[in-house]
Order: sequence, then structure tokens, then C-alpha cells
Amino acid sequence: MATSSSSYGIEQLEKGCYYEWMSLQAKHIANLKEALVSQRSNENDHKLEELVRVIINDFQKYAEKRLKLSHRSCSSYFAPSWNSSLENSLLWMGGCRPSSFIRVIYALCGSQVETQIFQYLHKIDGNKKDDGLMSELTATQLAKINELHMKVIKKEDKISKKSANMQEDVADMPIAVTAYTKDLVEAGVVVEDALDKYEEGMAVLMAEADKLRVETLRKIVEVVTPVQAAEFILAGKRLHVSLHEWGRVREDGRFGCARAGEAAARG
Amino acid sequence: MATSSSSYGIEQLEKGCYYEWMSLQAKHIANLKEALVSQRSNENDHKLEELVRVIINDFQKYAEKRLKLSHRSCSSYFAPSWNSSLENSLLWMGGCRPSSFIRVIYALCGSQVETQIFQYLHKIDGNKKDDGLMSELTATQLAKINELHMKVIKKEDKISKKSANMQEDVADMPIAVTAYTKDLVEAGVVVEDALDKYEEGMAVLMAEADKLRVETLRKIVEVVTPVQAAEFILAGKRLHVSLHEWGRVREDGRFGCARAGEAAARG
Repeated sequence: MATSSSSYGIEQLEKGCYYEWMSLQAKHIANLKEALVSQRSNENDHKLEELVRVIINDFQKYAEKRLKLSHRSCSSYFAPSWNSSLENSLLWMGGCRPSSFIRVIYALCGSQVETQIFQYLHKIDGNKKDDGLMSELTATQLAKINELHMKVIKKEDKISKKSANMQEDVADMPIAVTAYTKDLVEAGVVVEDALDKYEEGMAVLMAEADKLRVETLRKIVEVVTPVQAAEFILAGKRLHVSLHEWGRVREDGRFGCARAGEAAARG
Repeated sequence: MATSSSSYGIEQLEKGCYYEWMSLQAKHIANLKEALVSQRSNENDHKLEELVRVIINDFQKYAEKRLKLSHRSCSSYFAPSWNSSLENSLLWMGGCRPSSFIRVIYALCGSQVETQIFQYLHKIDGNKKDDGLMSELTATQLAKINELHMKVIKKEDKISKKSANMQEDVADMPIAVTAYTKDLVEAGVVVEDALDKYEEGMAVLMAEADKLRVETLRKIVEVVTPVQAAEFILAGKRLHVSLHEWGRVREDGRFGCARAGEAAARG
């Protein structure tokens, strides 16, 4: 079979960029765990701060790299073939919702409160509580995080609105009129240009969303202590990696071994 | 290779349901074209009205059928494997935005105005204008359509907001905490239950969105004449079928023949 190797190459580069990022995340997870354990014995916050800084910069670099690759084929980032349908249904502008970073903090704090109540009710020594959850946040920190949550949701809504308008525009001239008046399988130059413009617009929105994701991470890190920042980043990364894995397992279980074979070939 | 035939069967049923709907759409398009031509000679609005009624009911039946199939695997409707990435990037709650129906009307009206200006400037007889576009809407009709547009956008926003909350909930307890505290490839009962609840919630939203899609179609049909209704439904269907085809052609062009082979096998 003849293959358009340069075009086929773009898809391979996109997938490669993603899998490189996923393996970097595994490395980040290991580094964060190690740094948190080491911090408990030597209380060296500086090393944790540096690690968190490097990790956020790596995320920004990944965002920049995939944006470069997305030129005129941005659509593929809105429901990538390398994701399970569960993950794709959770996507917002080609990634996670920045507001969900904050929900991760609430989850860890809430879980902490639940653990403390459990310990109190069962008369368990508080010092022996599990050490996997986030270090307690002060009321001031929580108030700042809550304020940030509200701001981030507003910014998300603005980007969602722009995306809705772009989606609606596709149902307008010239695309709708061409579809109505011409019995063509090929779109033609006018429609191709309009679709290119749509995909370029979506790439701009994805970049805006990535900027908001990075900015939200940085603002959270400003509010919390270095230990809390490391715990939070670790929780976010483990959630991402787990959802990727769990979504795939659910899909394989649902759709049988045909998919499992594909997944193994992908991995 | 051993295959979980019952699970694999669900995916085949979902795909089958979609392709059945696409071939029904092709039939609807042919019927609408024929009925519009025939109406021009005999002015029998009743036949057109009946056809539009049948077509909207067919859409409702399709929505009900796929909802039944989506039980606990609703995610697959949010970025179906049978769509190109272009189409998936245009999806809203597993289908088109109801507001885009109204944009199709605006597109046809705007195009009509453009055609009239062109005819005026080129001194072409107005009666000889192309007969593919929508019959002119009155100012009263346009005002009603505009009012409907505003209402539909508000309802879309409400559904989008609910979906955003559900996406955020996944980043909260118990999912985020389990991901953080356990090194497990398998999700476990608590997480599986939470993910099932999420997918069931998304299925409810998809049903709400389908209800809004059907309701919007019915309200448009109430405002316009039977001829206009048939022209509008025809335009909407052709837009859907064309975007499906154009998206696939763009993707095949971009990603080479590997995908083209898959598409041929699907078709």
C-alpha cells in the first residue's frame, strides 16, 4: 500500500510527543516521591522548590512542543487516538480543566479531615495517621485557593464561550451554504480554507488553555508551602496517569481483546 | 485471539446504530429534495409537513436508541471512533450544538441577501436566481428565530456547566485520593463505582442535549413555512453528511493511506 510518508510522519510525531511526555511524568512522579521522603529527614525545602519549578517548566515545554506540531491539524488534540474514550470525555481544550487542579487540593484536604475524624472516632493516635495525603492547609491558604478557583472558572468559561462560537461558525457561511448547494465529496478551496481557519482558531484556544493550566499551577504553588506544592503536583500527576490507565482497562474490558491488542501495540 | 464477544458486540451495535442513522439521513436528503421539487409544481404543503414531521421523529428515535446502547459506556459517544477528529472537535454533548441549527438558517438567509445584491449589481432577473437556497424569511420570522437562538444558547450553557462540574468531580474524592494513595493499575471497586456514576451522569446530559436538539428543530419548524422547514432540514442534514465526509478526506490526506484503508473498511 502506498503511504504519504510525510503526513503519516506528523501523526507519529504527535504520538511520540505524547508518549515522551507520559514517560517524563513517570519520572517526575518517582522524583517527587523520593524528594518528599528525603525532605522529611533533612527538611531541605530548596530541593523541593527546585523540583516543582523544573516540573512546571517541563509542562510548559510540552505544551509549546505540541502546539508547534498542531499547526493546521489541531482537531486531533481534542480527542486524541492515544486516549481512551473515558479520558477523551474528560478533556477540555485538549487537556484537563485548570479548575480540576484545585479540586485535587480540596480532595486531599477533605480526605485529611475525614482521616482525622476517623482517627478521633476510633481513638487512633493522630501521629500515626497515613502520611500519603497533603499537609494541612491554613484557613488563609484555603481562602486564597478558593479565590483562585473562582477566577480560574471565569477564565475557563471565557475560553469555552470562544470555542462554542467557533463551533457555531462552522455551521454558517461559507461551509453550510457549500454543503447545501453542491453535491461534492471534495470540500473545495473555499471550504478547505474555512476549515483551516477553524482549526487554526482552535489551536490558538488550546494555547490559551495551556497558558491557563500553567498559570494556575504557578499560582497554586505561590500559595502553598514547598512540601504542599510537591504533594499537590504528585497527586495531579498520579491522577492523570491513573485515569489514562483505568480508562484503557475499562475500555478493554468493555470492548474485548480486539482493543487490548491495539493498546498493547500502542504501549 | 480470544474475544469477549458480548462486550465486543456492544461496540458493533453502537457503530451499527450510527451507520444505520447515516444511511437513513441519505434517504431523508433524497426524499426532501424530491418533495421540494414536487411542491414547486403542485404546491402541496401537506406532504412536506408530513415528511418534516417523520424526519424529526426519526431523529428522536435515533437519540433514544443510542441512549439505550450507551448504558455505562456513554464516554464513547463524546468522541466516537467512527468520526474524524474534525467532527469530534465540533461535537457538543455527543452531537451538534442546537444553536448551530439556527446558524444554518442565518447562513442561508445571508447567502440569499448576497445573491440578491449580486443579481442587482449584475442586472440579473431575480426570478432566475438559483433555487437551492432557503425561501426568504419575513422580519417577524427572523425576530422569532433570533429570540429562539438566545434561549437555546442559555440552555446549552446550562448543560455545558453541568458537564464541567461532572468533569471537575472526577478530580475530587474518591478518585483523586485513590490515585494518590495507591500504586494500582486496576482501579478497584470504589473508583469503578465513581467512574460508572460519572458515565451515567454524562448519559443523562447527552439525553438532555438530545432533547434540546429535537425541541429546537420543532420550534424552528413552528416558526417557518413547510417549504422553509424542508429547506432548512435539508441544509442541516447536508452539512452533517458533508462534514463527516470532508473530515475524513482531510484526515486521510494528512495521515496518509493507513487511515484511508481503515475508513474504507468502516464504510
